Amino acid sequence: MDKVNLAEKLSTFSERWQPHIVGELNGQHVKIAKILGDFVWHHHEAEDELFLVVKGSITIRLRDRDVNLKEGEFFIVPRGVEHCPVAKEEAHIVLFEPAGTLNTGNLQNDRTYEATPI
Amino acid sequence: MDKVNLAEKLSTFSERWQPHIVGELNGQHVKIAKILGDFVWHHHEAEDELFLVVKGSITIRLRDRDVNLKEGEFFIVPRGVEHCPVAKEEAHIVLFEPAGTLNTGNLQNDRTYEATPI
Repeated sequence: MDKVNLAEKLSTFSERWQPHIVGELNGQHVKIAKILGDFVWHHHEAEDELFLVVKGSITIRLRDRDVNLKEGEFFIVPRGVEHCPVAKEEAHIVLFEPAGTLNTGNLQNDRTYEATPI
Repeated sequence: MDKVNLAEKLSTFSERWQPHIVGELNGQHVKIAKILGDFVWHHHEAEDELFLVVKGSITIRLRDRDVNLKEGEFFIVPRGVEHCPVAKEEAHIVLFEPAGTLNTGNLQNDRTYEATPI
C-alpha cells in the first residue's frame, strides 16, 4: 500500500458525516470524516471508537458530560456508551475502530452511511 | 477515561525510541514516541503497524523502497514486512498496533523497550 496524507484525502470530498476508509490493519479501519452540526445519539454494542481531531474542534456529548476536543486531541468512546458528536464549525476527524463499525451504531436511519475506501 | 492531548503527552518525556501507551481500544494500543537516527531492521510476525507523524518527518525503510512521511501522513507496515524507521531530526509519531506489540518485533536486543501507559 501507499502512504496516506490526511489533508490530501480530506480534500477529495465535501460531504459531512460520511466516514471514508483510508486504512485497514489488524481488523480495524482508519476512517476520515468531515462533520458539522449535531449527529444523532447512538452507541456501538461491541466496538470502542477513537475520535482524533485533525482540524477544528468538536464536542463528544456523553450522557453525563461533554468532551471538548481540539486539533491534536483524541478521545476513546468505550463500547456501549451513548454519545453524540457535534461541531459548531466544520471539523475534520480521524476515526479508528473495528472494520464494519457503522456510523450510527445501534441505529439505522437517514444518517446511516456505510463507509467505503477513498 | 479522559481525552488525550498528543502534544501535551509528548512533552512529558524526552527518551527516544521508547513508545508510551496513551490509549487502548478493541485490543489495540495507541502509542506515542520520539525518534531520532536509525532504528533496527525488524518485522512483526502477526501485527500490522501504523506510523502517523505528528511532528517532523521520518522515513520508513523497506527492503525495496523508502517511504517518506511528514506531519499528517501515515503508513501501515503489514505484518511480516521488514522495516527500519529513521529520522534525520527528532520526530514525533503515533503508533496504532495490537496490544503487546514489541518495538523491535522479532528481535530482543538493547533497543527493545516494553511500552507502558503514560
